[in-house]
Amino acid sequence: MSDPLLDAADFTDDGLIPAIVQDAETDQVLMMAYMTAETLQETLDTGRMVYWSRSRQERWVKGQTSGHTQTVEEARLDCDGDTLLFRVHQEGGACHTGFRSCFHRRAADDGWTTDGEKVFDPDAVYE
Amino acid sequence: MSDPLLDAADFTDDGLIPAIVQDAETDQVLMMAYMTAETLQETLDTGRMVYWSRSRQERWVKGQTSGHTQTVEEARLDCDGDTLLFRVHQEGGACHTGFRSCFHRRAADDGWTTDGEKVFDPDAVYE
Repeated sequence: MSDPLLDAADFTDDGLIPAIVQDAETDQVLMMAYMTAETLQETLDTGRMVYWSRSRQERWVKGQTSGHTQTVEEARLDCDGDTLLFRVHQEGGACHTGFRSCFHRRAADDGWTTDGEKVFDPDAVYE
Repeated sequence: MSDPLLDAADFTDDGLIPAIVQDAETDQVLMMAYMTAETLQETLDTGRMVYWSRSRQERWVKGQTSGHTQTVEEARLDCDGDTLLFRVHQEGGACHTGFRSCFHRRAADDGWTTDGEKVFDPDAVYE
């Protein structure tokens, strides 16, 4: 069955499309991950962010282990259709290392410097 | 010569890394494009966003034709080192179609619906 949202999305040869995730409350960019057509469809249908893990080669429901789920507030597509932007409500932290955002390192003269604050203890969350 | 910023960046087999671009003033996500090690180095050295065009297979200085340059306010790297986030000062619009952001389409029941406002006339800018 054809879906106008899915049809406009341009997937790579690997069948993936990058999805940027932005905090709907603070506008902070939280992470970027990849979706297949199937996990994009599931995300749009359920309002819960579902990705494709390239390292594990499997469907990945954000927050299934950690409880740090992402609820979709808004989905956007860029001009050439090859990148998605989701504005979400983020429970806890988006980053598996315990930070709110995966982008917790900032360029400085001597290298990338962590300036984010940890919002949870990964050792307690991922047993 | 080794550079700690470049060394931490994880490029794909094609030698590229995605760069998310966020408006430093409004926090709006403007676009995503790709960089090589060379254009990332040039971006960090000059403070002006320089990409690699995958379609044209060439270095691409943002704003060289349109005047809609991007000046780096802050560069960030994600936890696994394979995605960059730049907070920039954007002149004019980031999107070649005339919108401030490339993400000017929002998911609606009947498909992707444009809800951004045009900030320039692309016919006048790209002759």
